[in-house]
Amino acid sequence: MLIYLVRHAIAAARSPGILNDGARELTPEGIKKMRRHAAALAMLGAQIDEIWTSPLVRARQTAEILAAGLEPSPPLKTLTSLEPSGDFESLRLRLSQSRHLTAVALVGHEPFMGEFTGYLLGAGRGVAFRYKKGGIGLVEIDDFAPPLRGELCWLMAPKQLGLIGKA
Amino acid sequence: MLIYLVRHAIAAARSPGILNDGARELTPEGIKKMRRHAAALAMLGAQIDEIWTSPLVRARQTAEILAAGLEPSPPLKTLTSLEPSGDFESLRLRLSQSRHLTAVALVGHEPFMGEFTGYLLGAGRGVAFRYKKGGIGLVEIDDFAPPLRGELCWLMAPKQLGLIGKA
Repeated sequence: MLIYLVRHAIAAARSPGILNDGARELTPEGIKKMRRHAAALAMLGAQIDEIWTSPLVRARQTAEILAAGLEPSPPLKTLTSLEPSGDFESLRLRLSQSRHLTAVALVGHEPFMGEFTGYLLGAGRGVAFRYKKGGIGLVEIDDFAPPLRGELCWLMAPKQLGLIGKA
Repeated sequence: MLIYLVRHAIAAARSPGILNDGARELTPEGIKKMRRHAAALAMLGAQIDEIWTSPLVRARQTAEILAAGLEPSPPLKTLTSLEPSGDFESLRLRLSQSRHLTAVALVGHEPFMGEFTGYLLGAGRGVAFRYKKGGIGLVEIDDFAPPLRGELCWLMAPKQLGLIGKA
């Protein structure tokens, strides 16, 4: 199975006026850049069966932009296990039960995405993978029984995705 | 310090006629693609102080193409510790003694590059990073005293580097 790991795009900053962190929305710049990142994935031939997203607004919006940029447009599912405080084990179980899928995209937050990348590779939580906002990684993994032994196919920064997406 | 990890580009296949594996040269396709990968690094703003290469011909040729594509063109050094059977510990020491440098590119072979990536991240040798021929990864690391705790900034496949390099 191919697992695309996507950190949400640039969102409005935390501010005293925003009491609910989960309600922060993407900025116009974040929306524009994320459209390019989706175009980059399409250009790279990504065929994604389902997009699973954190329920927070900035992640959900990112997932919607990703879905709109892919052909065919994959359905979205909202998973509490992709929240910033989400649980790796329940996400692993969910993936393990979804092996009929060829490719899934997970949209979430830092440090969750970086740590979950390490978890899928069997690298441990302390190993550092840089996910800037809108950054995307791809892990290929066939067996979800621990110890996990996925392979990191690639990890791209926003600048790189933007250059590919505007080409 | 920024460490660019580069797997050599596409080389002539092993054949009964080639007794010396180290003498295998890049193919015309390998040369053409590697020029694009070097252009991609230049476009991403890479400023590399030195290129360290395995002494094998296919790695040395890859390093020369990389040097030619960067501005300013970095000097090449040949290191036996970058041979396919090279020693991580001596390479770590060499890096540790080169902390006056801001960025170094290492040109070598698989599975060495993938395993050395894991070593720099403190992920262990069993963790899998995909380096196709001409693929490039970037690790940022400041302290070379074990246990190593580098961060993987990005890892790109040839297709992605080619798309950026021709843009």
